[in-house]
Amino acid sequence: MKRIGVLGSTGSIGTQTLEIVRNNKDLQVTALAAGTSVTLMEQQIREFLPQLAVMWTEEAARDLKERVADLPVKVLCGMDGLLTLAAMEDMDILVTAIVGMIGIRPTIAAISAGKTIALANKETLVTAGHIIMPLAAEKKVPILPVDSEHSAIFQSMNGENRKRVSKILLTASGGPFRGKKREELADITVEDALKHPNWSMGRKITVDSSTLVNKGLEVIEAKWLFNVEPENIQVVVQPQSVIHSMVEYEDGGIMAQLGTPDMKLPIQYALFYPDRRPLPGKRLDFYEMKSITFEKPDTDTFLGLPLAYRAIHAGGSMPTVFNAANERAVALFLDKKIRFLTIYDLIQGAMENHKVVENPSVEQILEAEAEAHAFVESHRRS
Amino acid sequence: MKRIGVLGSTGSIGTQTLEIVRNNKDLQVTALAAGTSVTLMEQQIREFLPQLAVMWTEEAARDLKERVADLPVKVLCGMDGLLTLAAMEDMDILVTAIVGMIGIRPTIAAISAGKTIALANKETLVTAGHIIMPLAAEKKVPILPVDSEHSAIFQSMNGENRKRVSKILLTASGGPFRGKKREELADITVEDALKHPNWSMGRKITVDSSTLVNKGLEVIEAKWLFNVEPENIQVVVQPQSVIHSMVEYEDGGIMAQLGTPDMKLPIQYALFYPDRRPLPGKRLDFYEMKSITFEKPDTDTFLGLPLAYRAIHAGGSMPTVFNAANERAVALFLDKKIRFLTIYDLIQGAMENHKVVENPSVEQILEAEAEAHAFVESHRRS
Repeated sequence: MKRIGVLGSTGSIGTQTLEIVRNNKDLQVTALAAGTSVTLMEQQIREFLPQLAVMWTEEAARDLKERVADLPVKVLCGMDGLLTLAAMEDMDILVTAIVGMIGIRPTIAAISAGKTIALANKETLVTAGHIIMPLAAEKKVPILPVDSEHSAIFQSMNGENRKRVSKILLTASGGPFRGKKREELADITVEDALKHPNWSMGRKITVDSSTLVNKGLEVIEAKWLFNVEPENIQVVVQPQSVIHSMVEYEDGGIMAQLGTPDMKLPIQYALFYPDRRPLPGKRLDFYEMKSITFEKPDTDTFLGLPLAYRAIHAGGSMPTVFNAANERAVALFLDKKIRFLTIYDLIQGAMENHKVVENPSVEQILEAEAEAHAFVESHRRS
Repeated sequence: MKRIGVLGSTGSIGTQTLEIVRNNKDLQVTALAAGTSVTLMEQQIREFLPQLAVMWTEEAARDLKERVADLPVKVLCGMDGLLTLAAMEDMDILVTAIVGMIGIRPTIAAISAGKTIALANKETLVTAGHIIMPLAAEKKVPILPVDSEHSAIFQSMNGENRKRVSKILLTASGGPFRGKKREELADITVEDALKHPNWSMGRKITVDSSTLVNKGLEVIEAKWLFNVEPENIQVVVQPQSVIHSMVEYEDGGIMAQLGTPDMKLPIQYALFYPDRRPLPGKRLDFYEMKSITFEKPDTDTFLGLPLAYRAIHAGGSMPTVFNAANERAVALFLDKKIRFLTIYDLIQGAMENHKVVENPSVEQILEAEAEAHAFVESHRRS
């Protein structure tokens, strides 16, 4: 019996994680955490009977507590609740499917307590990779990627000597605006940006996919997860999203993981690694598929990628600024407060405005985040 | 130091194996065997200083013995020589790059003596898989495939639980006549058939690749090597020969191995498994490549594949007949004694003429071979 905690259980990754638990009788949910979706959380508690549930706000926690008063579940709230959850005894693996830098501290707490991490929170490694990876190594805690690309890379390294890796080939769909030039992007609407060609995901990540900021964040994550220099991470546009990523070795051999676009595969892979389990769903049909195509990413138009590489090279707190500025800018775009291309301007501005802190503490990471948010808010009209 | 024996050292796989030995100082050649190429064998002996060299014919052995009289190498000949080599003490791994059923007995002898097998001899598993695989399991001897497709499948299973395999996707270039219909193949010349689009190989295997008999033999081999039912081995035509083969798992995930067409990769992979070693050479460039395409094989035109499946289903000695009839028919075609399409007719005729022997001994396999050869010789005018 594997005992699972889920941070962000009411989101896209969280609900899919619970679907997998539902289909595998040797998985057991012992803790759930969510933001404010009390109704869904109540349903999840009634179905999975965790020991502990955490809501982000006090109000939501109070509401939930009343609703599940008939059950032996403990309800907590806020960061204290998340930290208690992260270190709780009856949990083997923590799925960090929470969005935002809020995920950093619980992840550190879970690693310190020796929990295996199924990592679905991008910000953790992007901003605090220099803290997380050495800590995980020290505690001998596996960090199992849940993102489809990083899972594909991880699968392509299974059984291999990592010292023989020469290059990571990180694939990208190219997003809904692939092929468009900068001038064509000026009038992009929120509705346009939310039409991802292959994957069904949350709103923020869908916009990030259209700007290629998402791919930039993935490059930074990959650097930390697999200890590969950014120069050896090549982004390959593969519009059909059939090849989820690849790894080239020193002998020229390339291992790749392919599949239909279904996030349940990487989630399930992380939960059962190094084994696999049956997963119903559509299979790739190569007779039907006809072809897989490849392109170089257009880094003159989609600045998400070059800005990310610039952030990695600046190092320290700069990736935090890249991420935080983007986060706030995308929120403004989704609120129809700024235009699509202004996202890039605001990220770039925030990065130029920032003075890098080397080897930042969690405290300093959060300061850099606040600074980037403030920069974006004060420059949103420009 | 890994001590290597090479059966078929003067052929294409053999010479490439020695190239790898040349580039890796912790490999040592302790035995070489070849057919009649005395001059090349002498060069190889002078460079690699094996303890033992075997020539197939007595005459070649006598010639070689005189030439290398100044060296402390023992020279033997014939099947006795091969069997002595297979069981010799100072050898860890035997590369079976010999062509034809002549490879079966030395392979059995080597497995019995506990030697790891780097298998490049197709006939061994096609005809005697039912003897080889249980013996290897009993002796706990790894059978490491050297063929590019089987190596790709093997690499795609590295670190995986083999019970989770749902399907093998065996890729095929489709050969030089891909897209042609039966009536267009009537006047194919030897020269046409020897133009393989991607791989540079020996003459016989190049013709086999054009008839898809080679792919049929690979399906039979894959069945034995990976213990997968033929129904779960799907041949996918992938004309660029970029994806060397794939494995689908029960979760829908597909692992694939890709690379440039270079046999040195699978040879080296087998020699160093489970590690990899640097190998100079051209790398895949996805920006340049543009696309990988897929097709269903045309089994109405290229009967190599359906005949192979028929041979597997008949079982017992039938795959031997499929292989032996093809071997003799291709030799006749290369000698310009028969037409291209007659290769299929002769295989089919020999198979229809054959009464299956269940679970044949090596003796009975060789009888089935002789019978098929005789059938082809006596029906070559038809």
